[in-house]
Order: sequence, then structure tokens, then C-alpha cells
Amino acid sequence: MTKTKINADLLKERRNCTFDVQELIHLNDGGIHNTAKRKEIEEYVLSFDELKDKIPEEYLSHKDRYESAVRKGCILISVLQNRWKDQSTVQFSGQNNLYRIVCAVVKDMSPFMLHFGMFLPTISSQASPEQQAEWLRSGNNMIGTYAQTELGHGTFLRGLETTATYDATTEEFIMHSPTLTSYKWWPGGLAQTANHCIVMAQLHISGKNLGIHAFLVQIRDIETHMPLPGIKVGEIGPKFGFQTANNGFLGFNNFRIPRKNMLMKNSQVLKDGTYVKSKNDKLTYGTMVYVRVNIVTELAFEVARAATIAVRYAAVRHQSKMKPEDPEPQILDYTTQQHKLFISIATSHAYRTVSDWLWKTYHQVVADMTTGNMKNLPELHALACCLKAVCSSDATTCVEQCRLACGGHGYMTSSNLPILYGFVSATITYEGEYTVMMLQTARYLVKVYKQAYEGKSLPPNTAYITKHLEAKNSWVDSPEGIISGLQAVAASIIKQTCEMLFQHIESGKSYADAWNLSLVQLVNASEAHARVVLCEMYWRETQTITSTVSKNLAIVLQQLAELYLYYWALEKRGDLLMFTTITKEDIRKLQKRYEELLALIRPNAVGLVDGFDIRDEILSSTLGAYDGRVYERLMEEAMKSPLNSEPLNASFHNYIKPYLFKSKI
Amino acid sequence: MTKTKINADLLKERRNCTFDVQELIHLNDGGIHNTAKRKEIEEYVLSFDELKDKIPEEYLSHKDRYESAVRKGCILISVLQNRWKDQSTVQFSGQNNLYRIVCAVVKDMSPFMLHFGMFLPTISSQASPEQQAEWLRSGNNMIGTYAQTELGHGTFLRGLETTATYDATTEEFIMHSPTLTSYKWWPGGLAQTANHCIVMAQLHISGKNLGIHAFLVQIRDIETHMPLPGIKVGEIGPKFGFQTANNGFLGFNNFRIPRKNMLMKNSQVLKDGTYVKSKNDKLTYGTMVYVRVNIVTELAFEVARAATIAVRYAAVRHQSKMKPEDPEPQILDYTTQQHKLFISIATSHAYRTVSDWLWKTYHQVVADMTTGNMKNLPELHALACCLKAVCSSDATTCVEQCRLACGGHGYMTSSNLPILYGFVSATITYEGEYTVMMLQTARYLVKVYKQAYEGKSLPPNTAYITKHLEAKNSWVDSPEGIISGLQAVAASIIKQTCEMLFQHIESGKSYADAWNLSLVQLVNASEAHARVVLCEMYWRETQTITSTVSKNLAIVLQQLAELYLYYWALEKRGDLLMFTTITKEDIRKLQKRYEELLALIRPNAVGLVDGFDIRDEILSSTLGAYDGRVYERLMEEAMKSPLNSEPLNASFHNYIKPYLFKSKI
Repeated sequence: MTKTKINADLLKERRNCTFDVQELIHLNDGGIHNTAKRKEIEEYVLSFDELKDKIPEEYLSHKDRYESAVRKGCILISVLQNRWKDQSTVQFSGQNNLYRIVCAVVKDMSPFMLHFGMFLPTISSQASPEQQAEWLRSGNNMIGTYAQTELGHGTFLRGLETTATYDATTEEFIMHSPTLTSYKWWPGGLAQTANHCIVMAQLHISGKNLGIHAFLVQIRDIETHMPLPGIKVGEIGPKFGFQTANNGFLGFNNFRIPRKNMLMKNSQVLKDGTYVKSKNDKLTYGTMVYVRVNIVTELAFEVARAATIAVRYAAVRHQSKMKPEDPEPQILDYTTQQHKLFISIATSHAYRTVSDWLWKTYHQVVADMTTGNMKNLPELHALACCLKAVCSSDATTCVEQCRLACGGHGYMTSSNLPILYGFVSATITYEGEYTVMMLQTARYLVKVYKQAYEGKSLPPNTAYITKHLEAKNSWVDSPEGIISGLQAVAASIIKQTCEMLFQHIESGKSYADAWNLSLVQLVNASEAHARVVLCEMYWRETQTITSTVSKNLAIVLQQLAELYLYYWALEKRGDLLMFTTITKEDIRKLQKRYEELLALIRPNAVGLVDGFDIRDEILSSTLGAYDGRVYERLMEEAMKSPLNSEPLNASFHNYIKPYLFKSKI
Repeated sequence: MTKTKINADLLKERRNCTFDVQELIHLNDGGIHNTAKRKEIEEYVLSFDELKDKIPEEYLSHKDRYESAVRKGCILISVLQNRWKDQSTVQFSGQNNLYRIVCAVVKDMSPFMLHFGMFLPTISSQASPEQQAEWLRSGNNMIGTYAQTELGHGTFLRGLETTATYDATTEEFIMHSPTLTSYKWWPGGLAQTANHCIVMAQLHISGKNLGIHAFLVQIRDIETHMPLPGIKVGEIGPKFGFQTANNGFLGFNNFRIPRKNMLMKNSQVLKDGTYVKSKNDKLTYGTMVYVRVNIVTELAFEVARAATIAVRYAAVRHQSKMKPEDPEPQILDYTTQQHKLFISIATSHAYRTVSDWLWKTYHQVVADMTTGNMKNLPELHALACCLKAVCSSDATTCVEQCRLACGGHGYMTSSNLPILYGFVSATITYEGEYTVMMLQTARYLVKVYKQAYEGKSLPPNTAYITKHLEAKNSWVDSPEGIISGLQAVAASIIKQTCEMLFQHIESGKSYADAWNLSLVQLVNASEAHARVVLCEMYWRETQTITSTVSKNLAIVLQQLAELYLYYWALEKRGDLLMFTTITKEDIRKLQKRYEELLALIRPNAVGLVDGFDIRDEILSSTLGAYDGRVYERLMEEAMKSPLNSEPLNASFHNYIKPYLFKSKI
């Protein structure tokens, strides 16, 4: 199709690839039918010229950038809906790569993201059937968002201050923001875009606080889009990434909404103010788990984007000399570069694999819940917390390592790596802050440890604790040995931390004080547990997957999974030395095998990132395009700068001459 | 002076501080006279209203932002020069905090930074006395920058492609850019601001390449500011940070400059084309060392900015419950928060202390060089390489940890933490890329190891290698014990890496191949060496400093230095387990002492960051201001958004109504 010349180094790399890239693409997409569907959507969306930028959005003012994002977002939605009709297809994320094309249209987040990503799903999961029928019908012109976080409170939900006070005389809730810190702060699309909002607020009836509930609140007039009286709404200003998400603030001045606007699938408020409690408090955990599992899936994609950019650049870039007589080598040939990059390829596969497994577990648990069986929810919740935290943090490290591996050019916005960093680092904080998440899992692990101590049997993913508390934890140099070693580490850290906690209590401290004195260790325990799950599930699932693919692909997938295990064993060698029989000599062997794996993966590195099959428009990177025209693209992008459209900027005559030359610089 | 109410928590923290903050301020400034001078400059500059932004610059378009930065930069320079006359005072960085006020005026880098930071210093150090007399005289209206990096080559100087070919017939150099990759790329101020440029180019005379030399090249007309014929110049586009630095590209089409424009302090080209070689090739190393030591000094300041913001915010922010009956505690009371933040306070002190020591060493080595004694230059160069690399990488981690410790609000541009991250992370790459720097030091360490192996005595900062190669490396639990342990680790890793390198060679590999196979370990060796120097020098110099200050301040400075050592001992516990006699029980003790230190520092945390004495205008942070009005400032800053100046954005009628409502969302 394209006539562009492909970079000679990339051609060579692709010739030398030992496996069928198409087969890997289908695997990454979750099946050949998904690949076909994805490509159909991508081709279709990219056929619309009005969705392309003439001037890259980063040159625009904050306001112009927003308006451009609304324009493209609106066109994109209508383009997709006109073709596929079914509103549910217009999703912005999920368990497959079908709608990644959104990134190609609005590079730094659509202002409509939360409408599809949170507003509609919350109605689907928490509104009553009658409410759903009304609110989800098409043509009601609702543009929504989801408002939970406030200026003063984030992850600690109980601290939210917005109130919804029931007035039985008018059958209304009075929404109110009693303080500055109670203002909603952050919701995407809230500032100028949404006309409706799911608001999380403290429900008060007859002077009694019944805790946090969800309310559907109209904030702007449908016809005029003006904020309704009693609503104070606006935008919160620029951020680290998400420049076009239109994050907003929202305050209420005794704003009234009808009783039927409380989401009533679970709890209800009757006309007379009678409060009907939800049959199960834990139902809302399901949504939180869903969002957090989804983040792991998203991270697999973002790490794949970063790896694709950095690996292709490393194949094209030549630098320095290994031998005086030789030409400058591709930087991908330096073992330090391989060490920086290959872990990102493996990490993306690890997250895709582990999140596929998590989705299966999630759907099983949700199915159980509908029959009233809540048994496995706590374990799933604990898993989702620590995996969300550890994966977001590791992915951020991966993306930044990829960026830094591109040297100076990795700082160019046109590389897209800075924007990816903003995206990925935000996942550490949103939907449950890292440390808070880790401590949620830690609380679960302390409970589990007590059960183990009392000789009770443990849930499947923590069963290793019992095994390793009694074992000698002998080191075995193999992938399974590494998993076993990491289990020994986790079990030992959990044990040590619990003992410390209990000692503090025995010495007379309150549980709260003992807990606070143990926080650093508790976070370590959670991390160790997450490492076990990631390594074990990635390795185990890889064994299943490789039995279904061709031999050559199986070999490479196996190498990646092995690399991931050896990388983490080396990273955690201090813990292994403390809690297993591993020796200095064993660690040297680990290092040697790790470096062998780098060398084995080297010839397939470009093939592996080609296997992510991320279109140039979605990569949106001068450094990472399929054709490898790195330097040409850097210059072409730079030439789009409005500063380059004139040989002389007005500031010379306005400022430099009158000020600098006069002051005799 | 100010009538603003100070946040009650900050008042309480300041009341509880155990040392004299003023004394610490003088220490951080390098003496009471520096504090006075700094404050005088700050007060004076801030008295000019035209240097203040009405709309924060991040709301402007890329072009408007540049023009605003030129305006403020020009006014600032003339303001400073009119008051203090002496051009040399208008420096943008250096060994003290005198001119930090520049950050308050141009938040994301002045387009004139390289004029003062690189252009003038390069002339001072590499131009002949006659050239200096001409080029440094005031009123020549030169605005300069420094152009070294090209699209295709960065740290690997020998690979630069720009040529300067001498034409003896006209006594000119012909500057030329033979390829796209030879275009200069990155220099700050180059794009639209500078009219002159120091250009690093391959000198060719009579068909012979004589290597990289520096040339002064006029690129724009002084009067019209139009690019001269044969010059292609423009800007490279937006980046991760440095939005107003006006980074540019530059290409030459056989552009001629006079012979006398080669910087001729060292090498010279005579009229007839005779090349007079520099008496000492190593002289240019001096400049590189200067720039890298300066980076360590800068990092001390930037980490102090991040720590000030995050610690004050943590004192003001309340969140979650430790005990159900208690109010929400300051987040600074959580040990996890202390663990995240206090290392940044200590790191800033470590860098200030170590860079003071490095400056002393530097001046001594430069003094020696003028007498022809080059003996200590290689050690200083190796030191500057690994310290620049390790400090930039650690500081980036510190700043990001501070940012993430502020939760969601750390993502707000108005917190200034995203901008600081851009600044600090760039130091990992510019002026010598991390891995390349580490390998420069590694090359030196391999040489030193060979000397040790041959029984020769070693230079002072590597003398520990001899000692620990023979020692049993018994673990002692004390600050000195930690330093000794880290020395044992470094010596052992250096030894192990050299042995690996030599084994590869013995097995028949070329030195180059053996070197490439050992890269990952070589980098580890450099890092281990840098850890030794940082911990040892910080600890040693702290002992000297604390003998000159009041007792209460000495106690706190000592605690910080100790915290730094225990932190790094715990981080490197895997290495300590491998290379010393440390036991699991010893590590528990380290952890215990570390947590004790967190508790000891906690009451003084706010006092310690107050001791950095960074004015609100320089911090430029809604979260970190002295008065602690966090939420009020967040809202006030948001209200400056142009999107908030109108209740309805035009995009509603332009796009939302016609597209979304029509497609029946």
C-alpha cells in the first residue's frame, strides 16, 4: 500500500525474525476475528480527514486544545455510531484492542472518556431496571461523568463531604457542598462538557448519616448548556498528561434533585424517607474490582506502545563504536540497551496474560455473587488492589525506562513517550492510590496469615503461605524454582510483618498505633505477594498458551516469560538471600541465564513489537513508526510548529531590541 | 508583612521545631552574607510587576508562551544589569542560590539560559585572550547559544558530522551540514532567540580530519534578526519540560566564517592552514567536569523544591483514620509518608554537601592544571561522570516520589511538581547520557583495579578497593560500618566484573566483545562506586559541618546524614548480603534504626524544608506555599483558566449540539 521506503535496519531485523508475526498479532488481539474487526474499525475511522490534526495539538493554547478535542470527540462518536448503531460498541477501553483508534484521534484523552468509561457503566451496574430504561435510552442527550473525588478527599471515601439530604415534603434530595474541600475535583469532562453527573454523596435522612450513595444530577441545561442555578462548575487547569480530558470541579448550593435520581438498584429511599438498606454491602466492590482489573489490561497496551517505540528506535539508531574499525552499531546491540528494553516487552505480555486470567476469575466471582455466594470476593478484591498498584508502578518504570533509552529524542513530545508517561503514571494514583491499595491487600494478608497460623486452609492464591512457613525453602535454579523462591520470600515477609505487628500490640500499643508502625513492612508484604501472583500466573498461563501455538512462537513466548522471572529474581536477590538457601554462586548463574535470554530475544525484538501491531497513528511517534524514518519524521513534525512558519518572531522587535540591545548585553 | 492567615497545622509544626531555622538557612546559602544578598536580589526582582504573569503560561499557545518568556527574560536581564552593572552577576546558576529568582520569572526555562550558562563560559574558557576581549565586551549585541548535539549524535562526540573545512585562499572556514542527521538539534535559545552560536564541528584542513573543534558562528543579522544566507534554523517543537527554552535546529549550506572565529585558546589554525595542536588534549575535560559538578549543585536545589512542596502539603493534608474515634491525621504522621519524603530532604543535603566538596576538588585540580600537573584530572573526571549520572537518576526518583506522595494534586501543573520532574529527569540525559557516563567511570575503575591487582597504590577516592580486596568485610552496625560495607560491595563488584571481563578475553573474545558482554555489570560497578563516594563524603563532611553549628542543628543534620546511610544500606541489602558478613538479623536492625530516624526527624520535617528558604514565587506551587493555603490556592489558580472566564464554551453550539445530539447519544 504505502510507497514509503522502509529503513534498511528494520528490513534486516524483520527478515531475521524466527516466528510468524501474524500469529502473534492474533494472539495479542485475542483471536483472528478480533484482529479483523479491529482493523476494520481502524481503517474506517482513519478514512475521515476531519479527524486528523493539521497542527499538532500541543502547539495550541489550552482552550483551543479543548475545543479541538471536543470537535474530534463528537465527530468520532457520531462516525462510530452511524456505522455500528449499537451504542455499546462505542466503548473507550475494555478487554480487547478494538477501540484503540481513539488514541489516534484524541492523543491526550477525550473529554467524553468518562461518559463511556464510568457514567454509563455506573448506571448499568447501580441503577434500578426502571432507571436504566430511562437513562440509557438513546436520544436523551445526556452527556455524563462520574464525580467522586473532592478537593479534600480521594481514596478515603468515608471522608467525602458532599451531602444529599432527603426532604420528604417535596420528595427531593438537597445536594450541598458545605466547605471548599467538599468541592468535587478531577472528573473528566465535568468542566465544560457534561450536562449530567453521577455524584457520590453522604446520604442524610432525618438527621442521620447513612453513608455514601450515588445520585444522578443534571448540572447544565440540555438546550442552552448553561450551568443550572445552584451549580458551580468549571475546570481545574492543566495537569501532568490528560490535557484534553476537561477535568472539572463542581460545587452545590442546596441544589435539589428528585428522589428518583438516587441510583436505587441496591439501597433505596422511599417517598416517606424510609431507607431500605442494600442486601449486600459488598456489591459495590464488584465495580471497583472491574475498574482495577481493567487498568492492568490498559497497562499491557501502554507498555506495548512504549516498547514498540523504543525497540524500533534502538534498531534504527546507530551510536558510538564497539571496535575502532567497525561502523557504529545499532544501539539495540548493546547489552545495556537490551537490559533496558526487553523487560518492557515481557511486561506487556505478562499483564495481558495475567489480566486475561483475572478477567476469567472476575466473571466467575460475579456469577457466584448473583447466586449469593460471596466467598471468593475478598480474595479477588485483595488481588485486584495489589495488582493494580504494583502493575501501575512497574509499568510507569517501564515506560520511563523506554523513554530514557531513546536518549534526548525521548524528551520530544513528538516521540509520544512524554504523553505515555503522563497516562501511565496517573494509574498509580487514580482509582485507588498506590499505598492505600497495598495496605488493603496487606490487611487481607494479615487475616490470611492468622488463618494459616491457626492451621486453617487458605484460599487458592495464598495457599503458598502455609506451604512455605513450614518448608526449608531450598533454592532450585529454574523458572518454577524462582516462583517457589518468591513464594518463600512473600510468606516470610508476611510472617515477619505480622510478628512485628503482634509484638507492638503485646508491648501495649493499640492496634492502630501498631499498624502505623508497621506500614512500611506491610507495603513490602503486599508487593511480595503481588510478585508471586504476577510471576506464577504469567508462567502458568504461558505454559497453556504455548501448547496451542506454533513451535517457533512458543519458543519466543517461553523466553519472554523466562526473562520476566529471571529479571525479578535478580531484582529481589536481597530477599531471596534472606529467605531461601540461594547462594552468591546461584545469583551469578541467574545473571548469566538472564544475559543469555537477552541474547536469545535480541534477533526477535523487532518482530515482537511488530506483533503488538500498533498502527502508526495510534503510536503517534516520530521515533516508533513502522517505516523507521526517525530523523525525517522528527524534522517534518518540527516544521509544523507555528514558530517555524515565519523567519522572524515578533519578540525581536518588541523585546530583544528595546531591552537587551539597549542594556548593552 | 503579609496578612495571610497561616495554616494551623504549619503553625503547630513550626512551634515544635527543635532547631533555629535561620541558622540552617545561612548554612544552606553558604553563609549569612549570601542569604542577605539573595534576599536583596529576590526582593528587587519581585518588585517589578511586569515580570509577573496574569494568566499562567501553561494556558498559552506554544508560540505565545515563547513570546512571553522572551519578554520576561529581556526585562529580567536589563533589570539585573541596570542595578548591578557587572554582567557576570547575571548568571543563571552556579555554586549558590543567589539567582534562583529566575525560576520565579520564567518557570519552565528562559530562552537566554544557554547564553549565560554555556555561550559566555565557553568563550571564557576556550577563546584566546584577544577573542575574549572582543567577544565578551559589552554592547556587541551578541545573543549566543552552544550547539553540539546533532539529530544523529549526542554523547558520542566523535560521531558528530558537521564539518568546518578550512579554505586558505580566503582564510575562512566553510561550515557545512552534509546530511539530515548532521543538523544541530536541541540547543536552547537557538530557534528564534540567538544571533550567534558556538558550533562544535569536525575540523578539516587539506583533506585531513583533525577532530572536533569549537567555532563562533553568527547565524542571524544583528539588526534585522533574519537568518543569514546559508543558515537553516528553526525550533524543534514541544518537549517534556523546558517549554520556553526555545530549543532549535541548525543546518549549514557551505556557510563561510572568518578564520579568527575558531576558538583558539588551545588549538590554532594559522593563516596558511597550519594546524597547531593543543598542548594538552585533556584541557577540555575541565569544562565537562565543571558542567557535571554544576548539575549536582542544581539537583540539590531542585530536590529541595520538591521536598518543600511535598512536606508542607503532607503537614496540611488530613486523610483517612488511624483510630475510628480520632479525627483524620496529617498524612505526614503515616510512616509510609515519612519513608517517601524524608529521603528527599536528606538527598538535597547530601548533594549540597558532596557538591561543595567536589567544587573544592575541582578548583584544586584546575589550579594544578595551570602548573601542568594533570595527575588528578582522570580521577576527578571519573568521579564527575558517575556522580552526575547517579545523582540525576536518584534525584528524578526523589522528585517523582514527592509528586506521587501528593496524590492526585501532585498531577496539577499548579503544584509545579510536573514541571520539576521535567527539569530533573532531563539531567539524566543532557551533558552526558546516564549509561555512557557510567561506562566512562567503569573504564576508569577497570584501570584502577588492574593497578590494585598489580600491587600499585591507588588514588585517594578508590583506595578502598585495595583495602577491601584483602579484607574479610565483617559487618559493623554503625554509619562508618555502612560506609565500609558499601566499600566492600563496590570493591567486590568491581573485582567480579573485571574477572568476568578478563575471562571473556581469555576465552578468545576481543576486548570490545568482552566489554559489550559485561556492560550491565560494568554499570553496576560504577553505581556501587558512586554510592561509596556519596555516602562517605556526605557523612565525612557532615562531621566537619556539625562541629561548627549549634548543638540542636548539629543533631538534626546528623540524623539526616544517618538516615541517608541507613536508607541506602537497606536499598542495597542484597549486595551487602552477598559481599559482607551481614546477617538477616543485622538487616532487621538496620530497618529498626531507619524507622527510629524517621520518627526522630518527623517533628522537624517542616522546619527542615523551611530551612531551604525557597520563596513562594520560586516554589511556584499551590501545594507548597509557606502559608499552607493549599485548597484556596488550587481553586484560585484554576479560576485563572480562560475556560473558566465564560460560562459556556463555543464548542457546545459548534460541535456537541450538531454532532452528538443529532446522533442521539
